[in-house]
Amino acid sequence: MFITLEGIEGSGKTTLVQSVVSHCHGIGRDCIATREPGGTPIGEKIRSILLDPRHSAMDPIAEMLLYMADRVQHIRQIIQPALREGKVVVCDRYVDATIVYQGVARGLKPETVIGLHNSLLGGLWPDITLLLDLPPRQGLQRAWRQIDDGERGSEESRFEKETMDFHSKIREGYLARAMAEPNRFRVVNAALPQQEVEAEVVRMVSEALPPDP
Amino acid sequence: MFITLEGIEGSGKTTLVQSVVSHCHGIGRDCIATREPGGTPIGEKIRSILLDPRHSAMDPIAEMLLYMADRVQHIRQIIQPALREGKVVVCDRYVDATIVYQGVARGLKPETVIGLHNSLLGGLWPDITLLLDLPPRQGLQRAWRQIDDGERGSEESRFEKETMDFHSKIREGYLARAMAEPNRFRVVNAALPQQEVEAEVVRMVSEALPPDP
Repeated sequence: MFITLEGIEGSGKTTLVQSVVSHCHGIGRDCIATREPGGTPIGEKIRSILLDPRHSAMDPIAEMLLYMADRVQHIRQIIQPALREGKVVVCDRYVDATIVYQGVARGLKPETVIGLHNSLLGGLWPDITLLLDLPPRQGLQRAWRQIDDGERGSEESRFEKETMDFHSKIREGYLARAMAEPNRFRVVNAALPQQEVEAEVVRMVSEALPPDP
Repeated sequence: MFITLEGIEGSGKTTLVQSVVSHCHGIGRDCIATREPGGTPIGEKIRSILLDPRHSAMDPIAEMLLYMADRVQHIRQIIQPALREGKVVVCDRYVDATIVYQGVARGLKPETVIGLHNSLLGGLWPDITLLLDLPPRQGLQRAWRQIDDGERGSEESRFEKETMDFHSKIREGYLARAMAEPNRFRVVNAALPQQEVEAEVVRMVSEALPPDP
């Protein structure tokens, strides 16, 4: 079972990954949490290039290729081995993030990203994807508050520095993905109070989890 | 005019890039030297991931994507602007290195690399490519001697650590590229004494350089 969480900055993905993992452990399921970019030692170095706010000159295609390099390393080294061992894998961002950030918002086209994911990266798609949806203004305010409170490194600011228009494109892009693949996506209203969002996410995962093999 | 130098480790590319640049400056041509991976601030960080000898777990597709990310950044930020200004660009390794190292030696197929270079990276090919050909044993001995003498950082050892079989595949792969594109490639016998190699390289570049625009 491969579960991904997606959403704009400040949508609460990182916290909710932990909620899903706790739920899985609570019902006795072997489960790992991981994230993109990052998740492997090589990936963490790629992450630091991608998120460095000094890299404003990064070409969109270079950006997409770096996300894909990180992803293929992550798939081969972490995700596939865990799935083969029957574990539940919960991943903070995955291919849909590249489809939406680089394909939609940077204008490289969703089909380009989807085509390369299938042809070059082996086409591993999640079983379910939880889309944490909320207005960009609300998400960014939350992300900024976390930076102020020291709960979030300021490293992530290359994307947080983007305009509100960019973040609106991301939200619309994600909602379009959910419409295009309704069987895989579950849209969560992440503007609700934290506890309600968590309960909803856990309910959705419970429903989707197949019985322990 | 876009000139690339290719060859196995220790074939003398770095020194000969400088010879070509000196020759161009000597005849009054505006000229820049650059290299891959690297050549841009983002590229230098990608280079350090690619060449780090601790990264033995790197997936071949991740490796290819990192080279391509570096290349597209390099093309957009350095190579194309210089060519547009009428400069001669002399580059230490370029797309043929990816075709041979990842496409041939790592088994990803030359067509995959060529296809992505054309479709995703805009298909910028060099005007001439100087292939510095010599037996791998001789090249590696030279590279190791340079490391011992402190003339070469030991950073490059992820590829230098490969087996002799790997380096033989690289040499054969490069010679196959030269056969496939005889108009673009010039094969130089890099096993000759340094001065003769340099004279040959300068002669080939002189012949190929169009008159100053």
